[in-house]
Amino acid sequence: MFHARTVKLLALLLASPVLVLMLSLPAAAKTITYTPQTIYFTYCFSHPPAARIASGDTVVTKTRDASNDAFQPTMKTLAEGNLDLSRVNPQTGPFYVEGAEPGDTLKVHIDKISLNRDWGWGGAIPYFGALAPEYKTMMVTPPVVDTLYIWRFDRARNVAVLTMPKSKIGKVEVPVRPFFGTIGTAPYGKECISSLVPGTHGANMDFNEVVQGVTMYFPVFEKGALFMLGDGHAAQGDGEIMGAAIETSFDVQFTVEVIKGKTITWPRLENDKYIMSIGSTRPLMDALRLACSDMVNWLAADYGYDKMDAYQLLGQTAVIKIANVVDPQYSVACALDKKYLPK
Amino acid sequence: MFHARTVKLLALLLASPVLVLMLSLPAAAKTITYTPQTIYFTYCFSHPPAARIASGDTVVTKTRDASNDAFQPTMKTLAEGNLDLSRVNPQTGPFYVEGAEPGDTLKVHIDKISLNRDWGWGGAIPYFGALAPEYKTMMVTPPVVDTLYIWRFDRARNVAVLTMPKSKIGKVEVPVRPFFGTIGTAPYGKECISSLVPGTHGANMDFNEVVQGVTMYFPVFEKGALFMLGDGHAAQGDGEIMGAAIETSFDVQFTVEVIKGKTITWPRLENDKYIMSIGSTRPLMDALRLACSDMVNWLAADYGYDKMDAYQLLGQTAVIKIANVVDPQYSVACALDKKYLPK
Amino acid sequence: MFHARTVKLLALLLASPVLVLMLSLPAAAKTITYTPQTIYFTYCFSHPPAARIASGDTVVTKTRDASNDAFQPTMKTLAEGNLDLSRVNPQTGPFYVEGAEPGDTLKVHIDKISLNRDWGWGGAIPYFGALAPEYKTMMVTPPVVDTLYIWRFDRARNVAVLTMPKSKIGKVEVPVRPFFGTIGTAPYGKECISSLVPGTHGANMDFNEVVQGVTMYFPVFEKGALFMLGDGHAAQGDGEIMGAAIETSFDVQFTVEVIKGKTITWPRLENDKYIMSIGSTRPLMDALRLACSDMVNWLAADYGYDKMDAYQLLGQTAVIKIANVVDPQYSVACALDKKYLPK
Amino acid sequence: MFHARTVKLLALLLASPVLVLMLSLPAAAKTITYTPQTIYFTYCFSHPPAARIASGDTVVTKTRDASNDAFQPTMKTLAEGNLDLSRVNPQTGPFYVEGAEPGDTLKVHIDKISLNRDWGWGGAIPYFGALAPEYKTMMVTPPVVDTLYIWRFDRARNVAVLTMPKSKIGKVEVPVRPFFGTIGTAPYGKECISSLVPGTHGANMDFNEVVQGVTMYFPVFEKGALFMLGDGHAAQGDGEIMGAAIETSFDVQFTVEVIKGKTITWPRLENDKYIMSIGSTRPLMDALRLACSDMVNWLAADYGYDKMDAYQLLGQTAVIKIANVVDPQYSVACALDKKYLPK
Repeated sequence: MFHARTVKLLALLLASPVLVLMLSLPAAAKTITYTPQTIYFTYCFSHPPAARIASGDTVVTKTRDASNDAFQPTMKTLAEGNLDLSRVNPQTGPFYVEGAEPGDTLKVHIDKISLNRDWGWGGAIPYFGALAPEYKTMMVTPPVVDTLYIWRFDRARNVAVLTMPKSKIGKVEVPVRPFFGTIGTAPYGKECISSLVPGTHGANMDFNEVVQGVTMYFPVFEKGALFMLGDGHAAQGDGEIMGAAIETSFDVQFTVEVIKGKTITWPRLENDKYIMSIGSTRPLMDALRLACSDMVNWLAADYGYDKMDAYQLLGQTAVIKIANVVDPQYSVACALDKKYLPK
Repeated sequence: MFHARTVKLLALLLASPVLVLMLSLPAAAKTITYTPQTIYFTYCFSHPPAARIASGDTVVTKTRDASNDAFQPTMKTLAEGNLDLSRVNPQTGPFYVEGAEPGDTLKVHIDKISLNRDWGWGGAIPYFGALAPEYKTMMVTPPVVDTLYIWRFDRARNVAVLTMPKSKIGKVEVPVRPFFGTIGTAPYGKECISSLVPGTHGANMDFNEVVQGVTMYFPVFEKGALFMLGDGHAAQGDGEIMGAAIETSFDVQFTVEVIKGKTITWPRLENDKYIMSIGSTRPLMDALRLACSDMVNWLAADYGYDKMDAYQLLGQTAVIKIANVVDPQYSVACALDKKYLPK
Repeated sequence: MFHARTVKLLALLLASPVLVLMLSLPAAAKTITYTPQTIYFTYCFSHPPAARIASGDTVVTKTRDASNDAFQPTMKTLAEGNLDLSRVNPQTGPFYVEGAEPGDTLKVHIDKISLNRDWGWGGAIPYFGALAPEYKTMMVTPPVVDTLYIWRFDRARNVAVLTMPKSKIGKVEVPVRPFFGTIGTAPYGKECISSLVPGTHGANMDFNEVVQGVTMYFPVFEKGALFMLGDGHAAQGDGEIMGAAIETSFDVQFTVEVIKGKTITWPRLENDKYIMSIGSTRPLMDALRLACSDMVNWLAADYGYDKMDAYQLLGQTAVIKIANVVDPQYSVACALDKKYLPK
Repeated sequence: MFHARTVKLLALLLASPVLVLMLSLPAAAKTITYTPQTIYFTYCFSHPPAARIASGDTVVTKTRDASNDAFQPTMKTLAEGNLDLSRVNPQTGPFYVEGAEPGDTLKVHIDKISLNRDWGWGGAIPYFGALAPEYKTMMVTPPVVDTLYIWRFDRARNVAVLTMPKSKIGKVEVPVRPFFGTIGTAPYGKECISSLVPGTHGANMDFNEVVQGVTMYFPVFEKGALFMLGDGHAAQGDGEIMGAAIETSFDVQFTVEVIKGKTITWPRLENDKYIMSIGSTRPLMDALRLACSDMVNWLAADYGYDKMDAYQLLGQTAVIKIANVVDPQYSVACALDKKYLPK
């Protein structure tokens, strides 16, 4: 397995358009199976590592759903779940990656995501969601009425099904496309930040492109990077506008790598077609500016673009994706087709 | 021709998921060729019609580029074009559609868009663009430096080419996908609004999905609707983030239809896969709210969805597109796959 | 009267810190009494003048309330007023000021504002107001419930009184401080803009400092400036957060003056203590940026400040006033104590 | 001293319009003099207390300036200070207040603030400030040029003086009105948040009304409240628009009190004339909504106002103050004259 893994890694690297200044190659990449013992509700420098792994290692583990598995599919309201709001969005980890130091980049390949139960939940959460008064866009009018939606997974057909007795259509089927809502490293500046908040360290970006097969890049702010992940979504529209996706638990396998001496500012994502920068803040326009400015800087720093040329190229070709518009910071991705990267 | 046209229209209607309350069918749909005599820089109730047409008629005409054809491909700066800023973004029209009255909807099918010259321009416009201080996000630091980018069209290969001597890549090729940046009807409330501004009447949404083959729906606020269009873009990334697309002149053919008694609030678009609502305002988040709230209301009003069910469906499946983040109002489209529309 | 008027004008000018490049002095300033014949609901280049006046002239006239005097104090809801939404916020004027040309500045001194009836109205307007879903911040949850509040004026004590039977306090008294919510000139670029919208031409800024005794400055975009005013407010908190002030009709006297060759970008206000720039746009932060950037530029252009020094001075002394957060564009004023203006 | 102190407290309480559900009265209020031994750069549940104090106790202590005293008055740029950005805005404390538990309110009276040196600094900080591209409103154009402004205090005349050789005025004098930019309790949910960030726990609101003589109220999220303060400002305009005030060190005396069982959501301030709610978030409009919604709720919960009546009252009388528009979250205060509080 090690051999195949290394070959695959090398192949990926040779094919990668990302400039690698220096790579700490795995001495003997291994696969670690980790059964979550503790969970965390903040991204934080001071959490004891769940496991210590090496650059090149692969981890097989599980994640709980964002409610901390508080619901049963027979429930009708979120209130029935008796959520403890300081204990939601539990994260698996942190994984301490040997050799990762502040100023490095952590590369994470999401090898595999699998559903491990047959239902997920969505919800109308009072004071949450993009189309209703919320905890930051606070108003004097009433919030949405607490409702719990239970989606059933038809794994054979890879769809999630919701019955809608009050709607003419009766039921809808949504393609299952599992991804991690929350994924990242320990934050900068000895902050401990709720796992509900996305930022430069990643975390709760709720970006529906963080699917199996993609590669992500995160800034390393603490020794060991302290990588965590959670908040499995079986499917989600752009922006997660109602405030919850189809929330469920996952089995996951991922592989990490430390890129020594490569410093990035915001999380990045690479898939077969695109490279993407992901910025998170409010207001939405500034998240867009962060993402697209980071892409301009990326093209200038790593691909030899004149800065204004890069801006012009994005003006004519950028694909802008709204990741979330409901979390304490909004997230936007600015994507560029990899065909514009010089060899 | 009339016959074929009617059959096509009927076919479209039967296939259409849009509920048509009452349709004023064309007595004898005809094709009008209109050579622009005058151009307008505002969308306005008081502009004399360029032509009077009937519901079902097809128009063949031309549009100038957004600079009012002020540039030559040898120029290097926008200043060389000596733009008169009160006379930019010229529109062809208005077309007075017989029978259209306030409260109706104007349906416009874009039959054909053709490039009619071999270059287009982009630009770094001082105090314009999403990633620099601009006329509304005003700052004390300097704006972008005035630069004119000339893109050459290779029509055989359907690409636009820009040489970039200052960048390692040397030149880039962007697929040509022509669309109208500005398209709409006369505004509500006897306002006359610069053609640079998008709103409930459509106009400068700069949405890169307004391509050949789509159908658009606009509110009718004035007798005759007073439909206009212009601002041809050979290609543009999401958001038009540098403030200009690849700007050029067009030949265009479109077909109009009045949907009597059907009242809509914001422009809508339908293509083979999606229906979309397009909201325009600042800040960006509110444009998103307008678009997605309109989609919720649309699903409730025309397709029998319970409002909260519609919101939940969008939460799990919405495709959100950033049309523009540079105009006086930003534009966002909220799209839903047509497979979720009950028969 | 003429003599006294001229002397007063000269005294004002000599005392004024505003640099006057060239002033078209009145040949014989006169007082015009204008009884409104027509009213307008847009600010627009094409409105026929209500009266032609000269620089230096004083006008005595009246304004209707923002509902176009649609309510009676016995009503309980806005719906009872049967508002025609394309005919609200009526304006008195336009006054064509001889000699005013694009690029000049119109100076308007508000000599006197008087209440001319004994009640005003406020309201909870569905889809309006800062603390509820509104026409731009559109949501799927319900808006505020339509409510009409009738305030009674006690002119002897100069207060407005509202009984509040549902509240412990029973009734409240608010000091009357009458001001014009809407005041300005015809917009730039042949636009006709609803009188509900503030902009570079002024109009519906809803700024509670536009009281008797202040001097305002407006850009002139059209020949004659075409000055209008309306939307009397007996009192209003910062931001007009519920969407309506204490709305009433006014008697007013004002005096105009053309400042030839002096070009300004945004409306300005001067009172005994402050000079102010007023910016209008959404989002709120950008209105603040417009106002404060304009103040920096003003200090640099007219008062010999280094631009960064001006910024530093504002950083330590600016008074920022929220004029409105409910209109289609928000308005913010950036004020500087006049003691910082060099002699 | 104890006696006088208690009498003063009781007098304050009897005069206070704030409903006190239950007050843990000091057994024997004492004055603690604390010389800072350690400083903290985050607000955090896990910081060991600097001192343990009782409800009713008075503390006398000192605070460093926001640069962690990194500058000398001979410097010209911020770069010369060699700031460690993870170690700025140092806080004195935390003070563990016996008996304070989550759900209580901590009342803090600022008895006295004194300047303890003769200069302060302001600055043009690259990628910081409201009128330039910044760390969240990121752009591709250049930021402000790093500049350090040294203000000299004339304590006899209570002014800060800045020479401006590049400006016609030559020098400006600003009234000194010392206040704390940063003040608050440990955050909710076991977060550790940079002292640069304001939130529900208070912290870096940069509100120029937090002066000597006012009373503040903070939510208690952790046992002991863990009160801290720092970031002394000798003067500051609304919004702190250039990103720094006149930054300096302070001597301070304050008195704490635990209000048992009284739960508040956002920090509040009371002075002789007003009660205020302070909301912090981005965008600015939402900070305003948080502040004003909290005031509506406050009036309803503690003063018997019908919620819509409270909204109407604010609509006609609210005073809205822009505290900061430069920190990671903006802060806005919504103030109401205390004459509207029923006896």
